[in-house]
Amino acid sequence: MKASQTFISTLKEAPADAEIVSHKLMMRAGMIKRLGAGIYNYMPMGLRVIRKVEAIIREEMNRAGAVELLMPVVQPAELWMETGRFQAYGPELLRVKDRHDRDFVIQPTSEEVITDIARQELRSYKQLPRTFYHVQTKFRDERRPRFGVMRGREFTMKDAYSFDRDKASALKSYDTMYRAYCAIFDRFGLTYRAVAADTGAIGGDASHEFQVIADTGEDAIVYCPTSDYAANIELAEALSLIAERAAPAQAMAKTPTPGKSTCEDVAALLGIPLASTVKSLVLATDEKNEAGDIVKTTVWLLLVRGDHALNEVKAGKLPGLKGGFRFATVAEIEDHFGCKPGYLGPIGLKKPVKVVADRTVANMSDFVCGANEPDFHIAGVNWGRDLPEPDLVADIRNVVVGDPSPDGQGVLAIQRGIEVGHVFYLGTKKYSEPMGATYLDENGKPQPFEMGCYGIGVTRILGAAIEQNHDERGIIWPDAIAPFTVAVCPIGYDRNADVKAAADQLHDELAALGVDVVLDDRGERPGAMFADWELIGVPHRIVVSDRGLKTGTVEVQGRRETAANTVPLAEAVAFVKGRLKA
Amino acid sequence: MKASQTFISTLKEAPADAEIVSHKLMMRAGMIKRLGAGIYNYMPMGLRVIRKVEAIIREEMNRAGAVELLMPVVQPAELWMETGRFQAYGPELLRVKDRHDRDFVIQPTSEEVITDIARQELRSYKQLPRTFYHVQTKFRDERRPRFGVMRGREFTMKDAYSFDRDKASALKSYDTMYRAYCAIFDRFGLTYRAVAADTGAIGGDASHEFQVIADTGEDAIVYCPTSDYAANIELAEALSLIAERAAPAQAMAKTPTPGKSTCEDVAALLGIPLASTVKSLVLATDEKNEAGDIVKTTVWLLLVRGDHALNEVKAGKLPGLKGGFRFATVAEIEDHFGCKPGYLGPIGLKKPVKVVADRTVANMSDFVCGANEPDFHIAGVNWGRDLPEPDLVADIRNVVVGDPSPDGQGVLAIQRGIEVGHVFYLGTKKYSEPMGATYLDENGKPQPFEMGCYGIGVTRILGAAIEQNHDERGIIWPDAIAPFTVAVCPIGYDRNADVKAAADQLHDELAALGVDVVLDDRGERPGAMFADWELIGVPHRIVVSDRGLKTGTVEVQGRRETAANTVPLAEAVAFVKGRLKA
Repeated sequence: MKASQTFISTLKEAPADAEIVSHKLMMRAGMIKRLGAGIYNYMPMGLRVIRKVEAIIREEMNRAGAVELLMPVVQPAELWMETGRFQAYGPELLRVKDRHDRDFVIQPTSEEVITDIARQELRSYKQLPRTFYHVQTKFRDERRPRFGVMRGREFTMKDAYSFDRDKASALKSYDTMYRAYCAIFDRFGLTYRAVAADTGAIGGDASHEFQVIADTGEDAIVYCPTSDYAANIELAEALSLIAERAAPAQAMAKTPTPGKSTCEDVAALLGIPLASTVKSLVLATDEKNEAGDIVKTTVWLLLVRGDHALNEVKAGKLPGLKGGFRFATVAEIEDHFGCKPGYLGPIGLKKPVKVVADRTVANMSDFVCGANEPDFHIAGVNWGRDLPEPDLVADIRNVVVGDPSPDGQGVLAIQRGIEVGHVFYLGTKKYSEPMGATYLDENGKPQPFEMGCYGIGVTRILGAAIEQNHDERGIIWPDAIAPFTVAVCPIGYDRNADVKAAADQLHDELAALGVDVVLDDRGERPGAMFADWELIGVPHRIVVSDRGLKTGTVEVQGRRETAANTVPLAEAVAFVKGRLKA
Repeated sequence: MKASQTFISTLKEAPADAEIVSHKLMMRAGMIKRLGAGIYNYMPMGLRVIRKVEAIIREEMNRAGAVELLMPVVQPAELWMETGRFQAYGPELLRVKDRHDRDFVIQPTSEEVITDIARQELRSYKQLPRTFYHVQTKFRDERRPRFGVMRGREFTMKDAYSFDRDKASALKSYDTMYRAYCAIFDRFGLTYRAVAADTGAIGGDASHEFQVIADTGEDAIVYCPTSDYAANIELAEALSLIAERAAPAQAMAKTPTPGKSTCEDVAALLGIPLASTVKSLVLATDEKNEAGDIVKTTVWLLLVRGDHALNEVKAGKLPGLKGGFRFATVAEIEDHFGCKPGYLGPIGLKKPVKVVADRTVANMSDFVCGANEPDFHIAGVNWGRDLPEPDLVADIRNVVVGDPSPDGQGVLAIQRGIEVGHVFYLGTKKYSEPMGATYLDENGKPQPFEMGCYGIGVTRILGAAIEQNHDERGIIWPDAIAPFTVAVCPIGYDRNADVKAAADQLHDELAALGVDVVLDDRGERPGAMFADWELIGVPHRIVVSDRGLKTGTVEVQGRRETAANTVPLAEAVAFVKGRLKA
């Protein structure tokens, strides 16, 4: 294609509201154009990338046996009421009434609609397993849309849904999708990690996030460099850092720590390691009667080592807490501990409190904790001797770099990632049972579908790819999803017949080989021309100049290369083709 | 592809709410599935057709130099307020408020958004002309959605918009799109007609509808079989059927016509041709002051020949009526004519009335019209002698079959059509001027863009194609947009190794040639298998049977053919390939 046949519109400066590099570069490269908060026009350069992303997704989904269909953007609320999501979904769900005052939603996902299709179309076990997918516009009314396509309101998602007769088959479907996702992200040419993720209220053990690695990512990814362990921070298991509890060596001693309400301050004051302190976090759970009134409140004290952080997802899975918890109020804390927050600890409680110790804390000796008296801590505390064993010992903290890997194969590292895909085993509870979506088994008995759901944020891929691949000059697209793979940049296209002939020939030969090549016929000066293609991020460039042609050569340069390769004109096509990833 | 890899779900009976054949067949063939009123899931067989339609549209749009982008489904209302469409658009515009109570619309078209893009991106005359397009989900909240995809609420449309510096250039862009549309509909393989259409309030003379010809179409298309004249019924010009007014031959005579209030009844009673009668239609126009109060009402009498029908679009273009008119009330009629409707005429008016005669009526002599007296008509009426010449003579009627063609090249015929595309010259008044969308001309002076808009109803194409191409067994897709081009139907695929080998080979060889072929490996009985593919409308079928293979042959049958062609197995691929439209 010639550049004049498409629409190129680059900017020197990014608009002020663009906070992160991918947003800035997409705006500057003319890939997106803001229409409203979190709502973007996809301009020709951006749409070309989207189409390549979608094509790869479709090929791999089809190869994996998933069947494409298309479900509507505007969906009747009735279906969403069947699963309770119409009521339960927060203001992120865009609700709309039609001219007859009937309720509709602008779909953020399509579980209800696909389950409605399945309950009508998949009547027999003979029709299972079955995975459907679509690539469709979604809308989530984010409270604070930002970061361009990374947290937009309208976006394109590929969502797939599997229907199986039993859990074993569902996990096979899950695995097929997992492998398809790996194939997709491999083909994108992005560095990514599939990490185990929490399954939340669904339970079960099959949930993986596909994270594109980028320092700017919002998510923390835990992995073991010497094994294949990988999980997100919510899920990654923290082992005890102390193999066995040592015998007490110190006497318990109340110590004044005036104004020192954090473990860091206390450790500094006392001149002890932070790892000798214990942090107290107070939660509460409420028991309600049928009328919804609170009939009983239980207060919980969760203890993690001073250098560790509470993991609320893990806490939320503990017996007694998994029905939902909240942080205790100051009044509740003072009532149970006789002290304001900042000096709390497990010793000298005024009312019964459930004490949960992190695995590491449970093995600590001679530790320091709050004295439940303002401006005082207690040192030399020991389980058993100074206070009863904790009610519960559990993994309730985030892992940190250097923790032992749960698979015993090394120590953990942490990197940042951007979640662009998610595969999830749903089971029967969330959609098929409430919607009465069943098939008939061999005995003619109705059984609820075992379901899975699988999403890829198509438009988000663009942002993640750029966060991972850019430099000070602009975007560096992987070959497979670049808006163009090769840019032919002739110097003097409109005034030098030799340059024009060579550039045209290179373009035509590459195009004939199926290479997505653009010929810059806009007549820009070399500097501006090169800057445009570097900003847009085309991975391969061929410069055709009169000077080069005098020696029968052109210059080929990869977007990451600092210098050009001088290549004979006659070999340029083969040279470039050899560099392209299949 | 193997049939087991996609999803085929056919029905014996269409649901009761499917009124027209395309809706019935799309439901029965499992192409669409109703989700709500006018909202459909596109099932795999239907989506395959949509993708082929979209691909052809994209190729031809790109070839014509249009550049694809993608504008959002959810659009901020502010832009729609700039053109006044937010206020003026009726309840068909789906309006929605976000979590911050801001107004949005679910787009029915994208003129405002593209004009917003143009006013930011197209700053100089050097960037013109420019045509953008997108293929995107649209929503129109039809009062009475019906006919499946023909009058749905959510649908896919390709909409293109051209921006030019002046009208001459805009008409060139229009012509380019017109020719691209012809190429698109040619490639679809549908019988269609591009017909001149009314430009409504925009004025100007460039508006064409692309109508797929079908007896069941809602639109009347006027054309001249011996020339290239074609227009829709709203626009088609009606010449006078009487070259010159003859001298009066009869005396005027009031005639009792008790209870005969229609021209047909009067002609029958008096034993005269219907073409000797004149029909009276009474309109009214209101003049308002600045406060919006009616200060003056004018009553109009429009006269068409008894066998003709008033064309309201034409009437709406007359001086004095083009500001908007309404039908007069019975009170206004009695006040001005001294008579109730049914016996009205241009003679003996009680108050001033503007009389408009159709061109044919103006040349009639000795005609019959109402006497403005209940149960009486007047015969032998003549202009000039019995009443003043009309205030205005104009084309205010629909043409009828046999009328002279306006181009003087023959007589007019009428056929039915389904509008699936529309090209429209917009000028500057509707969008670029109200939105302040300007470019700088050679003198650095801002000028409003001359615009055009161009739509194709992607999903509607499916309905129109089926209305035009079906039989009692199902759909008959043209090759180019069929869900599959060829179905290989083996009899005993799962139990006869020779049949399986031959079928696999045919499938693989055709697929290798780029033919979109499906191999039915579902193990259905021949009757059910053939019925499915006939219902789905695959245009070419190859039956592989043990009996045929015994003589080294297979049976190839086109969907419209009544008998199969026995073809040697070795020649079958070439035979089929030779039948396919490029």
